[in-house]
Amino acid sequence: MPHTRYDVLGIGNAIVDVLARCQDQFLTDNNLAKGHMRLIDTAEADSLYEVMGPAIEVSGGSAANSMAGLASFGGNAAFIGKVANDHLGDVFGHDLRAAGVTYQTEAASKEGRQPTARCMILVTPDGERTMNTFLGTSVELGVGELDQQMIKDARITYLEGYLFDPQEAKEAFVEAARIAGEAGRKVALSLSDGFCVDRHRATFRALIKSGIDILFANEDEILSLYETGDFDEACNLARAECDLVAITRGSVGSVILTSDERILVPAEPVNEVVDTTGAGDLYAAGFLFGYAKEFELAKCGQLAALAASEIISHMGARPEHNLRDLAVQKGLLEA
Amino acid sequence: MPHTRYDVLGIGNAIVDVLARCQDQFLTDNNLAKGHMRLIDTAEADSLYEVMGPAIEVSGGSAANSMAGLASFGGNAAFIGKVANDHLGDVFGHDLRAAGVTYQTEAASKEGRQPTARCMILVTPDGERTMNTFLGTSVELGVGELDQQMIKDARITYLEGYLFDPQEAKEAFVEAARIAGEAGRKVALSLSDGFCVDRHRATFRALIKSGIDILFANEDEILSLYETGDFDEACNLARAECDLVAITRGSVGSVILTSDERILVPAEPVNEVVDTTGAGDLYAAGFLFGYAKEFELAKCGQLAALAASEIISHMGARPEHNLRDLAVQKGLLEA
Repeated sequence: MPHTRYDVLGIGNAIVDVLARCQDQFLTDNNLAKGHMRLIDTAEADSLYEVMGPAIEVSGGSAANSMAGLASFGGNAAFIGKVANDHLGDVFGHDLRAAGVTYQTEAASKEGRQPTARCMILVTPDGERTMNTFLGTSVELGVGELDQQMIKDARITYLEGYLFDPQEAKEAFVEAARIAGEAGRKVALSLSDGFCVDRHRATFRALIKSGIDILFANEDEILSLYETGDFDEACNLARAECDLVAITRGSVGSVILTSDERILVPAEPVNEVVDTTGAGDLYAAGFLFGYAKEFELAKCGQLAALAASEIISHMGARPEHNLRDLAVQKGLLEA
Repeated sequence: MPHTRYDVLGIGNAIVDVLARCQDQFLTDNNLAKGHMRLIDTAEADSLYEVMGPAIEVSGGSAANSMAGLASFGGNAAFIGKVANDHLGDVFGHDLRAAGVTYQTEAASKEGRQPTARCMILVTPDGERTMNTFLGTSVELGVGELDQQMIKDARITYLEGYLFDPQEAKEAFVEAARIAGEAGRKVALSLSDGFCVDRHRATFRALIKSGIDILFANEDEILSLYETGDFDEACNLARAECDLVAITRGSVGSVILTSDERILVPAEPVNEVVDTTGAGDLYAAGFLFGYAKEFELAKCGQLAALAASEIISHMGARPEHNLRDLAVQKGLLEA
């Protein structure tokens, strides 16, 4: 690949996570679909916060988590996403830059604008996370926010499917994919969430056929995309439309598909699944790091599995351990 | 003991912790004394935040952590401490109330007042925490903030030594101890930090002799209090001045002292010491819960050790697991 300033540029919603533990009954009582992400407004955000348990706050956002993970592997990462000029916006910016990610998107500061996005995440005793996102100022990410040079300077532009929810961000998403494609760069997409796929299936399908080089999905999302209950069928439809597809299946591991390969990657074992928040994001981080370094696909998958295993061993979706160190310990990278 | 509304009322600085991992070299480079707490001003808070790594935010404050722990055991806990009417103040109040602690202290809201206190905590690879506290509006906790009826209604009033740093809070501290004593209630004190003892040794000594029933300290603090390097000597001086003394010694366990008893309590083993923040606070939580329930001192120590082991197994000083459930699993409490 030609020389580039960034291995990967992530574009996504700029969110701070508010994570609390709860029993499964809490999800039932509050009509929350376990394992999914739903969008909430200010009133719902306030009422849910009122009833949820003691929380911790950790910077999040799907693509932002992936970029923090990529930087932790030693990759050169950048991020575009919109915060407000408030406490959570400061926290988000600090954490991303402190992780070593280039982040220059201007914070929204005008009066009357929305606050920084937050996601209230309920973690059940099995470690599964259920997400409630107040998008706040994230919806203000528009085409004007895209740094065209940054996109051209990135080997891979990585887009989260959640960006399809706010209309302006969706337009920015499509434009970013166009710019990257025209510059001869790779474009990667994460499907993000089964319900999100439900909301935007046709557009996702069209985009995948026309302009996505690398597709990330979990089992639920790929089944939803192709409206089938047959995993193998979904896999074959995906590989027919996209050059490279990586599908995660939780503790079963993941499968990497090209037109002529099907690589099974086992999950990295963990002592305890504490919180699955960010598992897919960190899988993408490891995979994209390996891909940008032109490693074999099987090794990309192993790095992905390793990063996912770190993130599910603690609360929050940002790595607590240096991923390069872990990869060196595992013999996946040289010291 | 007579019937009371609260098992324990904690009075302390109301703080949100900002926790980041770092290498030991970072402490050296920034002149930070490992394992200690230092007070910083706004400028230092800003410059330290600028250079520290990606962080997580978790409600903290020594006595507040203890009260959250006490509530997690199923105890009836209350807290008095001052936040500002800002984002971190909301977070602190939410987390404490969501933990089941009665917390009614009015937030400071006047223009130009200080923001809510925060503590920037650096966690080194060995799990040791080094704390940098910006006291903010905590210093505005005064005698007027004390709910006298609440103090009279609490079996034990628990005071953190850190309250001695702000002058107004120190006066509130002494007044609270007086009210509790006059009402025939117990008064407990944590020495908090070796440097804090250094700053206020004479006052601490006088107070312990005159009005403290239960004293918590770690080895460093008790040696500092009595200006000796001899642990046994410090123990004997403490037990001569105070009815009940509990001294923690990290992985060595703890020792509980009365005029005629010396009970050694082993530390509860953990897989990995992730972050020692709150170890002493949660030790006090378990101990005070047992004491309020009139358990034998050895069992108070075991509950204390159990709570400390939970808190050092993850980042942050608020329990992530229900302590009553853990104690039931260990056979220390009945289901």
